[in-house]
Amino acid sequence: MVEDSIFLRSLDLFKDAFPGRINQILKSKEDGKKIVGTLCLYVPDEIIYACGADRVILCGGRSAPIVAAEEYLPRNLCPLIKSSFGSVIDQKCSKTKSCPHFGLVDLIVAEATCDGKKKMYELLDKYIPTYVMDLPQKPENQNALEYYIKELDSLKDVLEKLTGNKITDVLLRKEIKSANETRRLLHALYELRKRDSPPIRGTEMLKVLQQMHFLAPDEFRKNLVLLLDELKVKKRESSGPRIMISGCPMASGNMKVPEIIENRGGLIVVEESCTGTRAFWDLVDENKEPMRALAERYLKIPCACMSPNDRRIAQILQLAGDFNVDGVVYYTLQFCHGYNVEKYRVGEALKQSGIPLLSIETDYSGADSEQIKTRVDAFLEMLE
Amino acid sequence: MVEDSIFLRSLDLFKDAFPGRINQILKSKEDGKKIVGTLCLYVPDEIIYACGADRVILCGGRSAPIVAAEEYLPRNLCPLIKSSFGSVIDQKCSKTKSCPHFGLVDLIVAEATCDGKKKMYELLDKYIPTYVMDLPQKPENQNALEYYIKELDSLKDVLEKLTGNKITDVLLRKEIKSANETRRLLHALYELRKRDSPPIRGTEMLKVLQQMHFLAPDEFRKNLVLLLDELKVKKRESSGPRIMISGCPMASGNMKVPEIIENRGGLIVVEESCTGTRAFWDLVDENKEPMRALAERYLKIPCACMSPNDRRIAQILQLAGDFNVDGVVYYTLQFCHGYNVEKYRVGEALKQSGIPLLSIETDYSGADSEQIKTRVDAFLEMLE
Repeated sequence: MVEDSIFLRSLDLFKDAFPGRINQILKSKEDGKKIVGTLCLYVPDEIIYACGADRVILCGGRSAPIVAAEEYLPRNLCPLIKSSFGSVIDQKCSKTKSCPHFGLVDLIVAEATCDGKKKMYELLDKYIPTYVMDLPQKPENQNALEYYIKELDSLKDVLEKLTGNKITDVLLRKEIKSANETRRLLHALYELRKRDSPPIRGTEMLKVLQQMHFLAPDEFRKNLVLLLDELKVKKRESSGPRIMISGCPMASGNMKVPEIIENRGGLIVVEESCTGTRAFWDLVDENKEPMRALAERYLKIPCACMSPNDRRIAQILQLAGDFNVDGVVYYTLQFCHGYNVEKYRVGEALKQSGIPLLSIETDYSGADSEQIKTRVDAFLEMLE
Repeated sequence: MVEDSIFLRSLDLFKDAFPGRINQILKSKEDGKKIVGTLCLYVPDEIIYACGADRVILCGGRSAPIVAAEEYLPRNLCPLIKSSFGSVIDQKCSKTKSCPHFGLVDLIVAEATCDGKKKMYELLDKYIPTYVMDLPQKPENQNALEYYIKELDSLKDVLEKLTGNKITDVLLRKEIKSANETRRLLHALYELRKRDSPPIRGTEMLKVLQQMHFLAPDEFRKNLVLLLDELKVKKRESSGPRIMISGCPMASGNMKVPEIIENRGGLIVVEESCTGTRAFWDLVDENKEPMRALAERYLKIPCACMSPNDRRIAQILQLAGDFNVDGVVYYTLQFCHGYNVEKYRVGEALKQSGIPLLSIETDYSGADSEQIKTRVDAFLEMLE
């Protein structure tokens, strides 16, 4: 429960950014800038920006485009994948165009993460040119890093060809510094959430993070600074059982579970998620050769597509301690094999640490909302 | 319908091989031989045999072990993965031990193919030491082959350490020759199936192929020769609409769909499957450096975990022509994202070639048998 509901003006900057950003992209396109769409954290933004392209994220969080997608994709597939695909075909084939940025993309840079996305990209290519990077699945393997570096080198070639610009080490270093600065600001924001009464709730923070890969880096960072400034001067406190939400991404439009948690009295203090710590936790080493430094940082992202993913288990335990978490809501999207299978190992690790776990597997519909509320109520009651 | 149901004695050699093979493995173990378990065609048998180990396949086709597996794995996961895992824990934890070979394995050599298997292997390692090879997901990528060769080199090291034997090029060449010989015999067998009235049915052939990765290569080959000899002298003919079954593996114990197809009057003339053409179609180049030749051959296997998988689409069309196929039954296991998503591209390709398609997504239970029968009846009627 937020005890002090003092209005945060800067949060609206994120919320209201959509039309301005669309106009900005339209203008950039007129000026000859190329727009790159991405759907995963394993594609380093720094390389895209270093070649003078702009970048927007295309992960779908809305339920509406799923119907159209199911004409091509199995029903038993993760809603994020279906929503993303549906949003693209909606832009290309229909008149509704509710998310215009899906239609402005010149090239999608995708990656071989999970089976569902990897195979969906094959169909996506018919609508928007799609380049898929390979991704080693066993990051600790001796040769995985070298393979990933080679894949990043190939991506560099593709982007140079798309834009006609050369990606130099100087440009890469500049973008690495810029992205690290954003990461440091997010760390500063998360530091505030370690307080007994954090000044910002999880549902508020999630809406900020959902804009991280949509807004231009400068604008996102400028808004972050304003948010941090506002949080420093406004006395704002929230309370409730301290929850970590851990698991699948919560793309823009998909707020069902975090909203239920906080509406029922829980307080999300940390998100172990692609819309959370996985998006910014590790910095890129600014002193190393840039492509290698990028590869090292990005290959460390503890997505459940990686195996074994011990780094994720360790990080969950670390975050649970640092953020003084009372309980973990393990949040998965239906049919996401990676996060659903990894639930067992995470559950075992939390059990050993005496941290309660509530597991919620869901989709983008509202059909299970009441059932989730009941389960969340019981979980929060147990934690209080 | 098999018009001439002349008994094939040699088929029983495959069917009845189980107890003898178990005794053979037990004896080998006493003599110090190491037993390697595999669960996928991307692990080259030749390397395992070249280091003096024996090999059995651990892919589960039975329904019974799934209940035990679901204590650890999500229900919404492919039955083959759950059955395989359940069979291992059954061997290690219970008294029933219905598939003793699961308990005789010294090391599992697994691979990062699909998400479900990759993540299941992390849990399997608690019961049987499990080594997981990485696998590039984009076989056409410039650097994929080199990465795969490095992974095979690492596998070689692991197996040499396990057995204490050195894997030389001479030994590898010997095993490549041996495996190619088996592949040639299978091609000879499949040639007979191109006839207007093939002398062997799909359900018979499948039971042969299910033994391919269970029996010792010499024994399997010896039985194949006997089968070929018998087919030459016995006049045996079968008829019915000519069906290609294409999609997921049909591991031993899982005969539901092929049996329904043939019991209802269809005639399976070719299996585009891991228990089918994918297991033996391409030969290893005997003139190249052995590890590179193996990598080239195995990376070409057109599993749906690969992207894009154009080679599979092309092969399906080629097989449909060569085997004079009337219709394709696209067979998938529930929640297998790879084959389920790829259904769209296969369907489009078949439509363009005017080949009818029946799509069946199922599990290991009998719950949908009647429904499948009705759909198969309607499909066969349409083809007649």
